[in-house]
Amino acid sequence: MSGLSARIDTGRLLDRLRALARIGGLPEGGCSRIALTPEDKAGRDLVVSWMRELGLEVHVDPIGNVFAVPPGTGSTPVVMTGSHIDTVRTGGIYDGNLGVLAGLEVIRTLKEAGIKTRHPIGVAFFTNEEGTRFQPDMMGSLVYTKDLAVAEARAQVGTDGVTVGDALDGIGYAGKAQVGGVNVRAFVEYHIEQGPILEAEGVTIGVVNAVQGFYWTEFTLDGQSNHAGTTPMTMRQDAGYAACRIAADLHDLADQIGDGTVITVGCIRFEPDVVNVIPRLAVFTVDMRNHEAKTLATLESRVHALVGKVAAREKLKVAHRSLTRFEPVKFDPAIVDRVEKVAKALGHSTRRMPSGAGHDAQAIAPHVPTAMIFVPSVRGISHDPTEHTGPKDIEAGANVLLHVLHGLANA
Amino acid sequence: MSGLSARIDTGRLLDRLRALARIGGLPEGGCSRIALTPEDKAGRDLVVSWMRELGLEVHVDPIGNVFAVPPGTGSTPVVMTGSHIDTVRTGGIYDGNLGVLAGLEVIRTLKEAGIKTRHPIGVAFFTNEEGTRFQPDMMGSLVYTKDLAVAEARAQVGTDGVTVGDALDGIGYAGKAQVGGVNVRAFVEYHIEQGPILEAEGVTIGVVNAVQGFYWTEFTLDGQSNHAGTTPMTMRQDAGYAACRIAADLHDLADQIGDGTVITVGCIRFEPDVVNVIPRLAVFTVDMRNHEAKTLATLESRVHALVGKVAAREKLKVAHRSLTRFEPVKFDPAIVDRVEKVAKALGHSTRRMPSGAGHDAQAIAPHVPTAMIFVPSVRGISHDPTEHTGPKDIEAGANVLLHVLHGLANA
Repeated sequence: MSGLSARIDTGRLLDRLRALARIGGLPEGGCSRIALTPEDKAGRDLVVSWMRELGLEVHVDPIGNVFAVPPGTGSTPVVMTGSHIDTVRTGGIYDGNLGVLAGLEVIRTLKEAGIKTRHPIGVAFFTNEEGTRFQPDMMGSLVYTKDLAVAEARAQVGTDGVTVGDALDGIGYAGKAQVGGVNVRAFVEYHIEQGPILEAEGVTIGVVNAVQGFYWTEFTLDGQSNHAGTTPMTMRQDAGYAACRIAADLHDLADQIGDGTVITVGCIRFEPDVVNVIPRLAVFTVDMRNHEAKTLATLESRVHALVGKVAAREKLKVAHRSLTRFEPVKFDPAIVDRVEKVAKALGHSTRRMPSGAGHDAQAIAPHVPTAMIFVPSVRGISHDPTEHTGPKDIEAGANVLLHVLHGLANA
Repeated sequence: MSGLSARIDTGRLLDRLRALARIGGLPEGGCSRIALTPEDKAGRDLVVSWMRELGLEVHVDPIGNVFAVPPGTGSTPVVMTGSHIDTVRTGGIYDGNLGVLAGLEVIRTLKEAGIKTRHPIGVAFFTNEEGTRFQPDMMGSLVYTKDLAVAEARAQVGTDGVTVGDALDGIGYAGKAQVGGVNVRAFVEYHIEQGPILEAEGVTIGVVNAVQGFYWTEFTLDGQSNHAGTTPMTMRQDAGYAACRIAADLHDLADQIGDGTVITVGCIRFEPDVVNVIPRLAVFTVDMRNHEAKTLATLESRVHALVGKVAAREKLKVAHRSLTRFEPVKFDPAIVDRVEKVAKALGHSTRRMPSGAGHDAQAIAPHVPTAMIFVPSVRGISHDPTEHTGPKDIEAGANVLLHVLHGLANA
């Protein structure tokens, strides 16, 4: 520890979280502030006003990413924190917003304590992390790292038929700052877990060392539809039964492989889908995840082997198509160690863990030393108005962020 | 055996099957002659003309059932055969029609050989056996046995919005014969198997001793939807997984109980049905069948126990509703024995079996000594234009019918 005695002001941080959540606020308590809508503009304007209040210089790039840095930073490498302020359609008030507002609270705390650092500290929020209206998600951070071209991003058509470009221009957030122009030496994202692990284990700080990779595959089994009364069990080519057997066996496979492996059959459909007709066709999706590339590859081949085995036994044709492939991301070991050390020094219980959800940090990690800090989500619920994280956990995470940023800025 | 040397004329029977199939004939070779349509009227008119050609007296009851009996039969108990001539939307040419036309061929054969019997032999066809346009199926036979009132049947509204009454009046088949007025002393229905068992076992004659009972139940499992990436396998309340596990285990349960038990999960639906969201809700149907009332009751309680066990283990709420309950029907042991004896005496391989599909005979069996004769269905296919039964099998079954009816009519 740097011997820093400053602590963030939790009341102030919570007040701002609630103030931001009122823009697009839902009657049931959550928030609906979808990317590049008038609500998003109002939310952005409010956060930008808070950035300016702190005397920060605000840079908006052509995809609407907003970077707040100390005046005169120029091309000096910045220790950056941040996240996103867009939400899903019926979202909570913590997802993304917490990381951005905690970053501003850290800067305010340091400023009020008169603490200077060797490197500047900045706060960013990235456009359209959620992907609710426009694909891909993590759009802003992917543009920032030049993994996605501005023109391509602007051409994306939203669920409402409007392009990103028109929506950006409409809210006045297609900025003039150079893409990637803010030079980042390290990036730390503070976020709610959006899963149940920390709460279940009674741990306060998740030391996030990776982001799970995931493959989404759709399988189609093709058999023979037949009369449910006249066809003995042994003479069936029941695509529905086979799909269910596979889904059940995949659950066991996840347990066998372990090490955080998760497998989900989220969609299923039978044809003809009639009570007394043996299904001819079954279509189902498999979402498989692991934080290690090697394990994920093994998992994928075992999923295909399992599907093939059951299909062959039931005399079914099998076809598959890949829907999405996202490879695991590793965070910077030195920053991960730092997060863990700081959290322990502040007296918090910790747990190293991969992130199961996607974050801007995963887009940034291949280019800049990056890590994340997680705090518990009550009952693991997120993307829902009932999303909640207790004030003590918010405070703990924000103080970890304060000390990690301060340490990195003096390193 | 009665020493009867007469045999039916297969070519003649097949010619008539084909002639009837041309009414509503499909380009691909099947037949679409749905109950109480103009096609059904044309088919009825043709079959009635063949009945009259044989010198039979034709009685049409108020639901359109047609009974052909020797002239002057009056209330004398008749040995009756028959089936139905309506088809499903894209049906085959054998289902139902074979039983009716083979009955007429039997009467023609006896007539041409100058063979008299002690009791009269008649042929019937019953209205709307298929239930394609109007519910319930087996409508005509249920009205004949007074298990369904004429007024109630006439009031049923079809899939096209037309009532049975209007459709019947429209084709001129709401007859004046008294319901149940034809006195039947025994009923034998000759039908294609509509399943794969006889073909698979290389058996020619199915000696049908029962009709499977079946229960249809819809189950709803209610859990918690969660993020497929952030929620460890052990912390899920995955209604989709549980439904699949149950469907797979039910397949094993059918094998364990055996004795012809079949279980089918024909319909399934997840909510929210999204690739990367753990299903909160799963709704699926279970079609369970056995030919013994006691076994079917045991089966039902074991299905519920299995669903309850899995739901409890996965921490899900479970609800169910009964969709249909049909109790098993036993056929008359003496007629069943007679069918078997005749078939063997004619040199055919036989197999006692329950019917897996529904037939008019099941409606009649509780009121009149009844049995059925099955012949193989190629690849078990029925209710499809590719439905097929070879000429040798058709001949075998028709000769068994001839000898069974002749024997019953002299008993």
